[in-house]
Amino acid sequence: MNHPSPAPELLQSSPRRELPHAMLEALRARFGERCSTALAVRQQHGRDESPFDVDPPDCVVYAQSNEEVAAVLTLAQQHGVPVIPYGAGSSLEGHLLAVQGGVSLDLSGMKQILRVNAEDLTVTVQAGVTRNQLNTEIRHQGLFFPIDPGADASIGGMAATRASGTNAVRYGTMRENVLGLTVVTASGEIIRTGSRARKSSAGYDLTRLFVGSEGTLGVITEVTLKLFPLPEAVSAAISFFPSIDAAVQATIQIIQMGVPIARCELLDANAIRAVNLHDRLGLREAPMLLMEFHGSQAGVAEQAQLVQEIARDLGGEDFEWATTPEARSRLWTARHHAYLSALQTRPGCRCVTTDTCVPISRLAESINESVREVEEAGLPYFIVGHVGDGNFHLGYLIDPAVPAERETAERLSAQMVQRALRLEGTCTGEHGIGLHKQGFLVDEAGEGAVALMRQLKLALDPRNIMNPGKIFAL
Amino acid sequence: MNHPSPAPELLQSSPRRELPHAMLEALRARFGERCSTALAVRQQHGRDESPFDVDPPDCVVYAQSNEEVAAVLTLAQQHGVPVIPYGAGSSLEGHLLAVQGGVSLDLSGMKQILRVNAEDLTVTVQAGVTRNQLNTEIRHQGLFFPIDPGADASIGGMAATRASGTNAVRYGTMRENVLGLTVVTASGEIIRTGSRARKSSAGYDLTRLFVGSEGTLGVITEVTLKLFPLPEAVSAAISFFPSIDAAVQATIQIIQMGVPIARCELLDANAIRAVNLHDRLGLREAPMLLMEFHGSQAGVAEQAQLVQEIARDLGGEDFEWATTPEARSRLWTARHHAYLSALQTRPGCRCVTTDTCVPISRLAESINESVREVEEAGLPYFIVGHVGDGNFHLGYLIDPAVPAERETAERLSAQMVQRALRLEGTCTGEHGIGLHKQGFLVDEAGEGAVALMRQLKLALDPRNIMNPGKIFAL
Repeated sequence: MNHPSPAPELLQSSPRRELPHAMLEALRARFGERCSTALAVRQQHGRDESPFDVDPPDCVVYAQSNEEVAAVLTLAQQHGVPVIPYGAGSSLEGHLLAVQGGVSLDLSGMKQILRVNAEDLTVTVQAGVTRNQLNTEIRHQGLFFPIDPGADASIGGMAATRASGTNAVRYGTMRENVLGLTVVTASGEIIRTGSRARKSSAGYDLTRLFVGSEGTLGVITEVTLKLFPLPEAVSAAISFFPSIDAAVQATIQIIQMGVPIARCELLDANAIRAVNLHDRLGLREAPMLLMEFHGSQAGVAEQAQLVQEIARDLGGEDFEWATTPEARSRLWTARHHAYLSALQTRPGCRCVTTDTCVPISRLAESINESVREVEEAGLPYFIVGHVGDGNFHLGYLIDPAVPAERETAERLSAQMVQRALRLEGTCTGEHGIGLHKQGFLVDEAGEGAVALMRQLKLALDPRNIMNPGKIFAL
Repeated sequence: MNHPSPAPELLQSSPRRELPHAMLEALRARFGERCSTALAVRQQHGRDESPFDVDPPDCVVYAQSNEEVAAVLTLAQQHGVPVIPYGAGSSLEGHLLAVQGGVSLDLSGMKQILRVNAEDLTVTVQAGVTRNQLNTEIRHQGLFFPIDPGADASIGGMAATRASGTNAVRYGTMRENVLGLTVVTASGEIIRTGSRARKSSAGYDLTRLFVGSEGTLGVITEVTLKLFPLPEAVSAAISFFPSIDAAVQATIQIIQMGVPIARCELLDANAIRAVNLHDRLGLREAPMLLMEFHGSQAGVAEQAQLVQEIARDLGGEDFEWATTPEARSRLWTARHHAYLSALQTRPGCRCVTTDTCVPISRLAESINESVREVEEAGLPYFIVGHVGDGNFHLGYLIDPAVPAERETAERLSAQMVQRALRLEGTCTGEHGIGLHKQGFLVDEAGEGAVALMRQLKLALDPRNIMNPGKIFAL
């Protein structure tokens, strides 16, 4: 594993705790072979897609029901042992590293789609169901679940990180699309939040307290989601621009005109170069917007016409349409491969990824300055972005053997975050805080708000067993 | 004041606390004439639009800034005195009653629209700004704020009760439309939550913890909201149906077809009779849907055609259009007067109002059974509803001098809530819990979830000074 280590200050407040023999024996008695201490299994569970060194848990338990999760948490509470919920392993900020040791609670076996209510556009799934699995199983009913963070993440993990992705500009994020949850609390109690009603004013919004809590308040085991009818018409288009700024200005106008665009993604020339190499796409290596329109035939045509006019005014060229599912799939596969493709342009490199999100009118300043800084610094990079939301990712491709590159990337990343905060945005649009952005969270929310978050954490998890050391140190 | 009293069990756990002389003196020293102990002022602040007896606070303070709110809370914390935030006084579940005495903190003077960012479709307002004030002041910029609970409520109060209303079926509720808050915590600290970015994964969702907290966790003093461009085309229509069931079936089909209808309101024959008397409208006294469509000219025409076909299939007649602002305003005024008009049909009566919300496929069962029960019981009633959301209000018009009528209304209301919960809905779509629905909250969320809410409350407000006795007793 060729990850640079987390900054030492993150580890100082995180001594590893012991897994008592009695607890391990109790887990083995209950879970048998579904409780593993094999090194390979522990190492696989002690990392995610972040550029951190692996930090393995002491054991891995594969749970299959709410009651099994509750049993693990009851034991963990009794013994003061950390528990780290694990879904698909696709998080990006060190969420899964066992910085204080403990149990990785693997929910990937909880893969049942419990109930589709097509007539209400809702579904209830177990946490380990992935978004592709869900969409495959509901497509024949004319339904889809739009949240698409790229990776085939688990729905539980997407809820825990408040994920969003390419369709959020039209359909919202997990914040807007989770109706209710089943949660096992730190004390091992199974509770339900929300209902299948579209709205409610019944007490505190526990659903949205757990959405985005990164496993630090309890274990999400079931999720009730909103679904959407498959649109009557879907059309995707790409357009190339003379500069990133021109592509961003086009995006700003599309959003400000109120066009209900379903997806509006930016790829810079570096990202295109990478996907061309990886997928032999032969795309022009210039800043590109990849857009998708959903609606009635007439509605899609209306949106497309407006967007073409905007793009043309800003020098957008080669407006190419993809109306068949196959042609669309080719473009979106390229988009989803951008990260991996970019990594392959510099063999042996690691990627430090940013995730700022700003109000749409500030997006040009946010991107343009970041590009200027990375060009000056001379680090290889690429940009992909959910620019319709004001959210983009700049990936710095660093050589892990050269500490100066890591330092440069971290400095540029910090400058970008400070700028996003000045522009009234956020340090993370969709990846979460994890280990890596804890300092940024304080800069963004303020000491007072973070202190309040700590109070909430301590109220619900006084022994700090739930994914300790993530979001903030206690 | 002719309100029936709250049920005695609500008051048992709520002894009044003393307002120490030292605190009153400190408030007078700081606020001068903006601190009042006049009986009339206290009585005006000790009630809302619920059918409860007035329960006046010990004094009323008119705050004009975050710092003034913080000063009041710092004193209240020191002396253990309750503080009840007060906006426009239009809440419906006893939220404003000073059941434990203390200070009513009137924010109606905080009426500044702090910043409109038209280019980002956001606005930041002080909590005392009302929705009509906001819409009047942003209209010339081609913008509007859609959440419309009927009353000209304050934005702070709407956030605190997670309000919704007629446009929620298209635009969402306060849950979806608040981007960030300034909150003064129980300890008197001023914190900010959220940002102007459209999405964020930065830590716990404090914004949505305070939205819907009914003043029990802190005082909301500023709110950053999403705005929307005024639609290019707006069209309203009414249609009359042979039965409530037919009107509800039409609604269910409209929603299930995915029509992006902006408003879809039901008025039953009793409600129409009342508004005819009050506003001389001459409407046919039959179940009516009042609908509004927003979009491009072509989009509105498309929606309207689809809805007319659905309505016609269900016996909907007299599809009448109102395309001018004046004609629309006449219909919506009638809708907004329905509550007041209904009260006037039975002089001296009070109204016990329900607020269940169910998944759309269950709406017919929810309404039809409730109508059957109230007809059998023989109480005068009326129905208005945001039926596109699965939410409706049945108002029982009771004679406050006849305890049996109150008991019958409460029994029918409880039956309706139990049915809504069986149908996987909620006891309150938009009014909140307040004093009146605390038992229902436990039925809905379960003891475990309510216990978790109490833990959150105690963590943020250990002396229980923030609107004590609301949502749950401690």
